[in-house]
Amino acid sequence: MPRPIITLTTDFGTQDHFVGVMKGVILSIAPNAEIIDITHEIQPQQIAEGAFTIAEAYRWFPKKTVHVAVVDPGVGTARRPILVEGGGHRFLGPDNGIFSMVMEREKCTAREVTAERYFLKPLSQTFHGRDVFSPVAAHLAKGVLPARFGKRIADALRSEFARVYPLSKRCWAASVLKVDRFGNLITSLPVKDFGYLNQCVFELQAGMERISLLVSSYADAPPNEPVLIAGSAGYYEVVVNRGSAAKKLGLAAGSPVELTVW
Amino acid sequence: MPRPIITLTTDFGTQDHFVGVMKGVILSIAPNAEIIDITHEIQPQQIAEGAFTIAEAYRWFPKKTVHVAVVDPGVGTARRPILVEGGGHRFLGPDNGIFSMVMEREKCTAREVTAERYFLKPLSQTFHGRDVFSPVAAHLAKGVLPARFGKRIADALRSEFARVYPLSKRCWAASVLKVDRFGNLITSLPVKDFGYLNQCVFELQAGMERISLLVSSYADAPPNEPVLIAGSAGYYEVVVNRGSAAKKLGLAAGSPVELTVW
Amino acid sequence: MPRPIITLTTDFGTQDHFVGVMKGVILSIAPNAEIIDITHEIQPQQIAEGAFTIAEAYRWFPKKTVHVAVVDPGVGTARRPILVEGGGHRFLGPDNGIFSMVMEREKCTAREVTAERYFLKPLSQTFHGRDVFSPVAAHLAKGVLPARFGKRIADALRSEFARVYPLSKRCWAASVLKVDRFGNLITSLPVKDFGYLNQCVFELQAGMERISLLVSSYADAPPNEPVLIAGSAGYYEVVVNRGSAAKKLGLAAGSPVELTVW
Repeated sequence: MPRPIITLTTDFGTQDHFVGVMKGVILSIAPNAEIIDITHEIQPQQIAEGAFTIAEAYRWFPKKTVHVAVVDPGVGTARRPILVEGGGHRFLGPDNGIFSMVMEREKCTAREVTAERYFLKPLSQTFHGRDVFSPVAAHLAKGVLPARFGKRIADALRSEFARVYPLSKRCWAASVLKVDRFGNLITSLPVKDFGYLNQCVFELQAGMERISLLVSSYADAPPNEPVLIAGSAGYYEVVVNRGSAAKKLGLAAGSPVELTVW
Repeated sequence: MPRPIITLTTDFGTQDHFVGVMKGVILSIAPNAEIIDITHEIQPQQIAEGAFTIAEAYRWFPKKTVHVAVVDPGVGTARRPILVEGGGHRFLGPDNGIFSMVMEREKCTAREVTAERYFLKPLSQTFHGRDVFSPVAAHLAKGVLPARFGKRIADALRSEFARVYPLSKRCWAASVLKVDRFGNLITSLPVKDFGYLNQCVFELQAGMERISLLVSSYADAPPNEPVLIAGSAGYYEVVVNRGSAAKKLGLAAGSPVELTVW
Repeated sequence: MPRPIITLTTDFGTQDHFVGVMKGVILSIAPNAEIIDITHEIQPQQIAEGAFTIAEAYRWFPKKTVHVAVVDPGVGTARRPILVEGGGHRFLGPDNGIFSMVMEREKCTAREVTAERYFLKPLSQTFHGRDVFSPVAAHLAKGVLPARFGKRIADALRSEFARVYPLSKRCWAASVLKVDRFGNLITSLPVKDFGYLNQCVFELQAGMERISLLVSSYADAPPNEPVLIAGSAGYYEVVVNRGSAAKKLGLAAGSPVELTVW
């Protein structure tokens, strides 16, 4: 029988004991669990980056995987812990919008997690990753039914991090969702909605640069020139062959970009 | 049967082959072992930080877990490898004080690890994480009894990283044990010994700041003002809501703080 | 039965979703696989560093381990994916020299991976780590025979990252293969070829320094003075006791060094 999988996405970093503690709590309850780190380097308290990351990662895992995402500036306040189900996956995290981009991809239901018998006691005010989300994830992975953790809610918070706004018939305002490790700028422009860019003339205004070249692999890009590429996440990305687009253009997550097509 | 767990805490970083090599050695001897990283980003050769980290992490794991901690400026010298048992857990590392804070929490016994038949040969002078601690951890995890690795010793090194010194009836000298990823300053002031701070007037001198506000969650802190919080590790922490206390106060691990109560 | 092991060595970093996605793909195909990270912090697109790292790591793992190494500036171009077998291990990665240092250690055979039925579809132009190497690794780990993935080739790319050139009878030009986390400079001078350094007078020119002291442990080095040590990887390393040789000498991976012996 395959081991149940639990993935972790947090802004806890990897230099402290926090992530190890979460794994200890999980393995104490579900010794058979397979724990997979997505990342612990979400920028501190950047919910939008966490939302993007878990939405890109979850769908490559087997169904029934439990995905824990903890980017939680409101820990210790009244914000609710939630359990979201969608696409055959289960998601656990604070009700602060971190599953917004999952909800855009999947028809989801949500529950408020209230069953304190599954929490560690005493409940700390500052580390619900350890006291709430890890033990609940472990019990879920062991087969406890979602309904046991709390009641259905209809008002789980959904933020619109990835919206593209039309400015005119030929022009859209979008934004940088994330800068990846190579300095590539992942924009909020979905390849599926703008698949015709390779058949028309276009211009992407990004920082001080106007980009009008679309290439199909990094190696096709002229040296040191920012170009567009259809990224593996399903969004157009601004890349510089063997360089950092983020540094060259001076852009970061949240920076606006503007697309015009003719 | 659950798989035996081995945790790793080192200052090896994650950019080199060192940690992967340790895992290869462990899995070659104990193919069933579940290896969990606590962290590999202890500041190079900072034994106190390693001591704090393993003491915070071990107790969340199931009993019988083998915890390997390698922060080892003396590798290749006569410093002894030791096997410490306490609280149902087993600890392997150099005899340089790295288990001091575990020993403060648990009644412990220690052995010098001398049974070279469990070491890799030839024994390198610079990488006992690979040649001594990984294979011994793997054999321990497979069920070899602690007594097989060496004789009991009574003089394992115990450093006092976390001591709080009374300066007067109302005043204590303490220190910053660690700066976490969010810039929170974890002090050596235990919540259990100073639980009355929420019922009295106090002042914590930390760098150029005097802190006299205790809050129960990050969100309760006024913006940009350092405050005290009862941290999840059981120590008071200086935090700045959505900011870095370490940057704001210019403090680091080892910095002194002084508490006065009225 | 022990679980099949798959190791990962990439330049993807750990802040993005890429590594998590690879693990999700692997576990979807081979739920039993044990996935071990060697490192994901190879400097972006530095094939030589990747080649050194995987060559240092693989041989500590059990035979039959599948080692995936993806440092791939040519992703999306005509460069071939290859499957290399040697020393009882299996290696998967792009045909760009990344297995050169493995090939120096082991008698190897190589295959071009062409069996698209094992790839994810649609095949992206930018993320063969997900679409090619992860699924092929998973199928290999599940027992699919190497011959099923493609035909033998005799011309897999082999680069000479680690060559030592004689300049005269007593003098060799070598280079820094890698700077490790402690700032130690791992040179391309193999201990086995220059084992007599402890019995002769020598001088290593490295940056502005001339090093003529060989020590057997870090602690034997005078403070703040760069010295030579026989490193655990089998190469001589320039180290500074409790300091960074890279910073002190101003050297980096690729920097030349010159050895003279008398």
